[in-house]
Amino acid sequence: MSAGPAGRTSAPSGSSGTPSTGSGPDAGARTGIDGRSAPGTRRPGGRTARVREAALAATLEVLTDKGFDGLSVDAVATRSGVHRATLHRRWGDVGGLLADALDSSAGEGWTPPDTGSLDDDLAAINEEVREALVAPRSVTAAVIAASFRSEPAAAAMRRFLADRYERSAVVVDRAVARGDAVEGTDAHTVLLAATAPVYHRVLLLGDPPDAATARRYAELAAAAVTGHPQP
Amino acid sequence: MSAGPAGRTSAPSGSSGTPSTGSGPDAGARTGIDGRSAPGTRRPGGRTARVREAALAATLEVLTDKGFDGLSVDAVATRSGVHRATLHRRWGDVGGLLADALDSSAGEGWTPPDTGSLDDDLAAINEEVREALVAPRSVTAAVIAASFRSEPAAAAMRRFLADRYERSAVVVDRAVARGDAVEGTDAHTVLLAATAPVYHRVLLLGDPPDAATARRYAELAAAAVTGHPQP
Repeated sequence: MSAGPAGRTSAPSGSSGTPSTGSGPDAGARTGIDGRSAPGTRRPGGRTARVREAALAATLEVLTDKGFDGLSVDAVATRSGVHRATLHRRWGDVGGLLADALDSSAGEGWTPPDTGSLDDDLAAINEEVREALVAPRSVTAAVIAASFRSEPAAAAMRRFLADRYERSAVVVDRAVARGDAVEGTDAHTVLLAATAPVYHRVLLLGDPPDAATARRYAELAAAAVTGHPQP
Repeated sequence: MSAGPAGRTSAPSGSSGTPSTGSGPDAGARTGIDGRSAPGTRRPGGRTARVREAALAATLEVLTDKGFDGLSVDAVATRSGVHRATLHRRWGDVGGLLADALDSSAGEGWTPPDTGSLDDDLAAINEEVREALVAPRSVTAAVIAASFRSEPAAAAMRRFLADRYERSAVVVDRAVARGDAVEGTDAHTVLLAATAPVYHRVLLLGDPPDAATARRYAELAAAAVTGHPQP
């Protein structure tokens, strides 16, 4: 999983009913980011895991293809080959499917950059966020839109983002330890100052920043706590 | 209109069909922020203006009460007392109604704070944004949610925000002129660094900041261009 705080870069590119292995949710291999055991982990690699992998990959495919309005249990059943009764029994509705798809794409794999400089670490995070948001068929953008419609999706997105910001705090803490940032710097505040303008530009202003501008937001956030004023 | 870059603070509080005068769209009194003459301005204060005012106020009331899913031309007709044929003829659909309601609430009235300090100016803007987003029956929050469903609503919201950021640039430019911020500082970047974390906390993290924290984001953005590192 290479995505930053924004999450997955794009939907699995496999054809219908054939989730690709590279970017599809790794069902069975991970634990949901809220710490509970995921449904598919009981028999890793077994039928339960395969069904879950197919259902969650299809959920994200339908979401990015059709939007939340086109996301239904029937559509997921058709795309995944998993019986709709099974989907209803395990996940309840599309909100439950979407939440599990997000939880399953969190997991233990992601670690923040460690370049040795606060500027470069924040810039690397911002570039991941930017790429995730502007990617064709962006899962991140589709999930954010869905979060305004589905409380389970919103809750899962918040868990995902909170987890990524928590993991990223070490970037700021290391800068303080190196003496690059002032003592007592609040990591979460600096991370938000860096990343939030990227989300804002894409989601609210409809004006996605280029890579240089995303880096600029990171540099500005770093400058605020290092005392090197930026024009 | 007292709202900052986030827009209107809350829906008109008048009862159904009786838009309040204080916070309802001032039909006829203003020009849409995109520069075109608004439909109601032909005969200021006349029947055309009153119909427009009633229709747009009802649009925002229905949106904040029922969400975008409950917003229909029929619902606006019922609430406003304006005939649905009139609504269809003038605005087309709910996207057109919502876009005009946003455009009409922009106008010439808003000016950014001028406290004499970049910290305090940005903090005042952030507090306006924060209050607009966390207000009960927040029009801003409802419009942002609607912007993911309706392209006219999204376009109107972007015009509105772009206008507010443009007007707010003077806050940064004055700081440069005073010698408080480094020469060549990009106003838009600093404004986004200040405000975007407030939107991010409310809309994506579901964790609205308190007033002190919103101020903190403003101070951090100011520090980045003034060279006074903040912990």
